[in-house]
Amino acid sequence: MPRVMLTVAYDGTDFHGFARQPELRTVQGVLEVGLSRVLVKPVEVFGASRTDAGVHARHQVVHFDLEDDNCVLPIDRLGYALSRQMPSDLAVLSAISPWARFHARHSVRQKTYRYAIRVGRVRDVFTDRFELHVPTQLNVVAMQEAARWLTGRHDFTSFCFAHAQQDSKIRTLDDIRIVRPDETRLLLEVSGKSFLHNMIRIIMGTLLDVGQGRRTSEDMKRILAQRDRRAAGPTAPARGLTLWDIRYDDSSAEASNFTLRWP
Amino acid sequence: MPRVMLTVAYDGTDFHGFARQPELRTVQGVLEVGLSRVLVKPVEVFGASRTDAGVHARHQVVHFDLEDDNCVLPIDRLGYALSRQMPSDLAVLSAISPWARFHARHSVRQKTYRYAIRVGRVRDVFTDRFELHVPTQLNVVAMQEAARWLTGRHDFTSFCFAHAQQDSKIRTLDDIRIVRPDETRLLLEVSGKSFLHNMIRIIMGTLLDVGQGRRTSEDMKRILAQRDRRAAGPTAPARGLTLWDIRYDDSSAEASNFTLRWP
Repeated sequence: MPRVMLTVAYDGTDFHGFARQPELRTVQGVLEVGLSRVLVKPVEVFGASRTDAGVHARHQVVHFDLEDDNCVLPIDRLGYALSRQMPSDLAVLSAISPWARFHARHSVRQKTYRYAIRVGRVRDVFTDRFELHVPTQLNVVAMQEAARWLTGRHDFTSFCFAHAQQDSKIRTLDDIRIVRPDETRLLLEVSGKSFLHNMIRIIMGTLLDVGQGRRTSEDMKRILAQRDRRAAGPTAPARGLTLWDIRYDDSSAEASNFTLRWP
Repeated sequence: MPRVMLTVAYDGTDFHGFARQPELRTVQGVLEVGLSRVLVKPVEVFGASRTDAGVHARHQVVHFDLEDDNCVLPIDRLGYALSRQMPSDLAVLSAISPWARFHARHSVRQKTYRYAIRVGRVRDVFTDRFELHVPTQLNVVAMQEAARWLTGRHDFTSFCFAHAQQDSKIRTLDDIRIVRPDETRLLLEVSGKSFLHNMIRIIMGTLLDVGQGRRTSEDMKRILAQRDRRAAGPTAPARGLTLWDIRYDDSSAEASNFTLRWP
């Protein structure tokens, strides 16, 4: 059963998240319907990340398996045919044959998410779908100090959706950075192998509390230690969050070689 | 009657153009409803450019007149109150008191429009609302040569919507440029005092014919001379067009001082 690795990007605004749900427009659902049309049989896809409703992806990875007898199309033609089935808010960036034992989720070495904030009186109508508009100035230095407490391996219960089904709340943040590319933007970039439900949005909501002076950067240490969702700040809106990049264990050179292979 | 000058920006995708139309969502309509709420009486606004359905604006200018007796709000408070009434795809960037005899349309010295094209196999889901996706490579040099025929004062009948109501089809293009900021984008930037109906979109459609080899750059000269809409190429889709900037006759220093004046 040859496996196919797809890279896709989407504007999450009009999707009810990645995971298939009956009657709702989801990324998985739209991909599966498109693939089933191309291959003329039902296809199930597996995504690297089950992004929430409203969350975007610049680089999401998905795999599915072909039965041998439906390899009628070369893989690049298959990617092209699929891309022609997609709506304007979901793009198929590449389709390749991955290395042996590749799995879109299990083989992930590192995922990077970016949360974008527009700081200023007025929203930017051209990027508004992809960022949270915060009209007040933020104390960026305090936010950077607060974020520093979170790097490394911790029990992140305080930063997890209270009714999450994950058993262990221990995760490792490889990197967490707050950057200010210009006066009007603030970006939170977080990298790690896996995250808890709503984790990045709760971190962002808590960092906004710090940036707006409702909490100090030292509070972050205490919140982490409390292991209680109620200790942290609100869950920031989905609109600002984008799955930015994914790296894989093996053959990372291959994985990053996301050239467009179809004609 | 004190006059107020507003600068606004909008994502034109979900508007039926600038000009008010019964039962349809238009930029003028949404601004007038918002202002009428703030001032608690009917208000009529005048725009510098009546952008078509689907055309965007990074910098559109609008004016309206206050009756003396409704100057209850300082102008910056008025701008702020109006901005709070706006939907997420229409932003009020500034509200100022303009110089004497200012008129949003009549005082215009120069308007600049930008038409954006995404060149490449795959659309960019993050900017797709604001650009035309062209999957084939374009001959940019030929397009630049073709565009050169259009600068200056000409009869632009060939580049005007066939049923347009404008009497004279003579216009002056101050500047027309095709720039390629990176491998995947191509921008047409056109400046002039005023334009004919659909003029920039027909120019873009004809330049795409040149870029894709269906016409030569020399053809542009002939098309211009024919003064016949049927001689030119198709009207490019509205989605790629953005009203980019407006300059005024008098007090251009003031006009460009679009600082955000409200708290």
